Amino acid sequence: MKNINNSKLKVIPLGGLEQIGMNITAFEFEDSIIVVDCGLSFPEDDMLGIDLVIPDITYLTENADKVKGFVITHGHEDHIGALPYVLKELSVPIYATKLTMGIIENKFKEHNLLKTTKRKVVKHGQSINLGSFRIEFIKTNHSIQDAAALAIYSPAGIVVHTGDFKVDYTPVFGDAIDLQRFAEIGKKGVLALMCDSTNAERPGFTMSERTVGKTFDNIFAEHRNTRIIIATFASNVDRVQQIINSAYKYGRKVVVEGRSMVNIITTASELGYLNIPDYTLIDIEQMKNYPDEQMVLITTGSQGESMAALSRMASDMHRKISIKPGDTVIFSSNPIPGNEKAVSKVINELSAKGANVIFQDAHVSGHACQEEIKLIYTLVHPKYSIPVHGEYRHLKAQAQLARSLGIDKENIFILKSGDVLELGEDSAKVAGHVQTGAILVDGLGVGDVGNIVLRDRQHLAEDGIVIVVLTLEKYSNQLLSGPDIVSRGFVYVRESEDLMEDARQAVMDALDYCEMKHITDWGKIKNTIRDDLNNFIWKRTKRSPMILPIIMEV
Amino acid sequence: MKNINNSKLKVIPLGGLEQIGMNITAFEFEDSIIVVDCGLSFPEDDMLGIDLVIPDITYLTENADKVKGFVITHGHEDHIGALPYVLKELSVPIYATKLTMGIIENKFKEHNLLKTTKRKVVKHGQSINLGSFRIEFIKTNHSIQDAAALAIYSPAGIVVHTGDFKVDYTPVFGDAIDLQRFAEIGKKGVLALMCDSTNAERPGFTMSERTVGKTFDNIFAEHRNTRIIIATFASNVDRVQQIINSAYKYGRKVVVEGRSMVNIITTASELGYLNIPDYTLIDIEQMKNYPDEQMVLITTGSQGESMAALSRMASDMHRKISIKPGDTVIFSSNPIPGNEKAVSKVINELSAKGANVIFQDAHVSGHACQEEIKLIYTLVHPKYSIPVHGEYRHLKAQAQLARSLGIDKENIFILKSGDVLELGEDSAKVAGHVQTGAILVDGLGVGDVGNIVLRDRQHLAEDGIVIVVLTLEKYSNQLLSGPDIVSRGFVYVRESEDLMEDARQAVMDALDYCEMKHITDWGKIKNTIRDDLNNFIWKRTKRSPMILPIIMEV
Repeated sequence: MKNINNSKLKVIPLGGLEQIGMNITAFEFEDSIIVVDCGLSFPEDDMLGIDLVIPDITYLTENADKVKGFVITHGHEDHIGALPYVLKELSVPIYATKLTMGIIENKFKEHNLLKTTKRKVVKHGQSINLGSFRIEFIKTNHSIQDAAALAIYSPAGIVVHTGDFKVDYTPVFGDAIDLQRFAEIGKKGVLALMCDSTNAERPGFTMSERTVGKTFDNIFAEHRNTRIIIATFASNVDRVQQIINSAYKYGRKVVVEGRSMVNIITTASELGYLNIPDYTLIDIEQMKNYPDEQMVLITTGSQGESMAALSRMASDMHRKISIKPGDTVIFSSNPIPGNEKAVSKVINELSAKGANVIFQDAHVSGHACQEEIKLIYTLVHPKYSIPVHGEYRHLKAQAQLARSLGIDKENIFILKSGDVLELGEDSAKVAGHVQTGAILVDGLGVGDVGNIVLRDRQHLAEDGIVIVVLTLEKYSNQLLSGPDIVSRGFVYVRESEDLMEDARQAVMDALDYCEMKHITDWGKIKNTIRDDLNNFIWKRTKRSPMILPIIMEV
Repeated sequence: MKNINNSKLKVIPLGGLEQIGMNITAFEFEDSIIVVDCGLSFPEDDMLGIDLVIPDITYLTENADKVKGFVITHGHEDHIGALPYVLKELSVPIYATKLTMGIIENKFKEHNLLKTTKRKVVKHGQSINLGSFRIEFIKTNHSIQDAAALAIYSPAGIVVHTGDFKVDYTPVFGDAIDLQRFAEIGKKGVLALMCDSTNAERPGFTMSERTVGKTFDNIFAEHRNTRIIIATFASNVDRVQQIINSAYKYGRKVVVEGRSMVNIITTASELGYLNIPDYTLIDIEQMKNYPDEQMVLITTGSQGESMAALSRMASDMHRKISIKPGDTVIFSSNPIPGNEKAVSKVINELSAKGANVIFQDAHVSGHACQEEIKLIYTLVHPKYSIPVHGEYRHLKAQAQLARSLGIDKENIFILKSGDVLELGEDSAKVAGHVQTGAILVDGLGVGDVGNIVLRDRQHLAEDGIVIVVLTLEKYSNQLLSGPDIVSRGFVYVRESEDLMEDARQAVMDALDYCEMKHITDWGKIKNTIRDDLNNFIWKRTKRSPMILPIIMEV
């Protein structure tokens, strides 16, 4: 596949770098653009009130005629979650493996996109042709089934994108990662490797998912006389399979609780990815017919999410399940960074109710550690290295691995979102930058909350608001009523009457000053009130609430 | 020491259980109360805008005539931080070891309490008599020097309180924990042991502080050609000592940066707890006179605190120090739960500037692991076990250790703050409950932010505020001006003109409805506006901003 006309392949990450989440990367060759993944990210701590964050796809909408489709590596939210929003602006086909597509279709149902979106299920080993590109799906292992790496064949050369992956020689369902195919493609000559960096700081190998099954067996054997409740990630179907296996082996019935868990298990079993023995799964209403020692509950809430099923059980807010002394509760998960305190809170609540909480050794990661990353580099043998999927520290850790494997420093690219990396047979350089960004979703609003609104929310959160209202006569500026002072989130007004009365006096003084200085412009009057009241409040309380003067005219 | 009159010893934790922080425990025997520690805690995530949290000491102020003094185990904020606030309500003497007192006195200077508060420095091995109590200070090891356990001798028996401790056989400064004295007191017969639970979930032994010194030596040997920047806890004087030792050994000058770091190092060296070779410490202004490979910077910010020195360097906000490519930056700390993301952010920023960031193996804990806890139990051999200093999961883990050591289940008390545990020679029971709680400090305000204000701040943070102002004629209820709608933190108004105009119409409709129904009561009019506008906004945006109707009368 020679690049006859000297055109370059452009690799343009539109998100997913400098953060975990919001993965989306455009590949452009002449008149063809394909997009790999279309994920969301969850709001940062300072994005108050925001539900989700999706990528800015201005670059794609501006080049809409070139975009041939979305190619999806696997069914996690950080790879598919923005699809429903993006497809409202850009109607192109979606390509994914069967389970991934099943999960995407659940989303499309909710957003009424099922009829209007072209979809094609692709098998591992199969290729699709999209404009100048051919894309081959390669079997990998991950914490969700049916994950794929992509070999992207372009006239400028082959790019291998691992997606999220680990090397699991003994997976619970289906085959191990197709290392032979990685090797074959490597033999052909690979221009660039884009490899998962999540665990690039961790030495060694990620353990097989199957080891967790052994742990479950041990725990089930040790706790034969208690109810067992296991929290895990809804999308980890293999984990659920192993819990069901252990339950069946030890003669327990299984109840599934939590909306996202029920959804994914339903989809996975309909599509044949989950093998549930007859009479094992029972409805939550039937629980009362079985003694505790014959029950296993699989539930959401492994990250301490306040509204998830386990958290509601822990805080006595669940309508159907109460934690009892003696219950064995297993966190089959690690806290995602930022969730540590929330998880700890749930563990404390469960312990205080007398539950025996197990939160170690019942989880393995879905991402490759250093030895696996080295293996893939060695098989694929790329000319250029483009670490992806991680914060800067993770990308840098992979860059260091790449160097240790003999890749030249100038052939390794730690990109930023929006960078346009131009790849030719013998050249690679960041040749430009396109618009990217985070679009905030709050309720039904997509993008209507920006920096100004967020800054106001942060200010309100910190010190509350003090509103000053007064009515002036339109022409004479005569004070007809007020100033009235109303506050929210500032002080408990009933116990701060002196302060509020003195604040009112400070506003009166400001008004007197304006009159004395013949200040009649309402904007200036408002500024004077704001500054003087701000000074007064800071001196008295060392706080700076938002101050909002409102003048009504009669 | 026989309990002749059958009085009981009351142990009353006023904070510090169900959480890490705000440690304060009252011991009461007849007319005597002594208080061990007086700490603050840092605000939880939902305590928006709060600076610190101090314990409610109503029980002590109501029994002020009984309170003989505060006995302090060590100089960490969660053990001394509330003293300046509490002493304004309750003027009693303070007893502590020398460095602990030095750190307390720094606080008292800031709060103008130095002249009015009686203070007595106590040596390890020494006892003080306070009312019915004798209190002996016992040498321990911890992540701050001069930590003490307390043997509290009462007519009802001896209670041993470990304070925060670890067993360090090879401490950097001074002696190892006085295990012999724990054993001697154990021989006499100990009624109850109150032991640090922080690491009770961790098997094994906590490593000696000295092992970190070896790590520093290795890092200094490996990075001879770069500047070294080390972030650690300001109060860990031994850690600072070891950095200075390594710096001296490798011919580097030391600069200390960050206000709290400078304060503690000054106090520690004045009191003789830190041994700095001549010409080793230099001023930050002198840095420019030395090449990078001859410099070590010790700095605050190991927890990713946004205003600390290291964070400011990482984000280019530090006035005097910029991170350069090649700098070696060491986090000599572990992230405290809840700070993981903030620390990771700083690591990313440092890495992106080309620094080589080391965040593993350069820290040891200051708290005892399971084997150390077992050692203390075995030496002290208490009748009753009262796990302290931890969240419920930690207290429970220690309770399980106590049981494994043969202490009866009914002799182990996992208390809640406010519980009154009555201890006699042959009996122990929770006999009552006193008022406790968290007093929020926000700026100069102590306790003026309560649940209502916090709930308002949370509401404002989530969806902002919409204010509706209108002016009515006093008697006729005739609309003289408005309704005007002002919002903050809700939507970007300039791009939502239609929404705001429709919202105004919704308010007009509500007013029409009130007129039609002859509703003239302003409270009812406000409620109608609030409900109707809330419905309108929810339908259009799926958001629920705070809605604040204000009626002005003319």
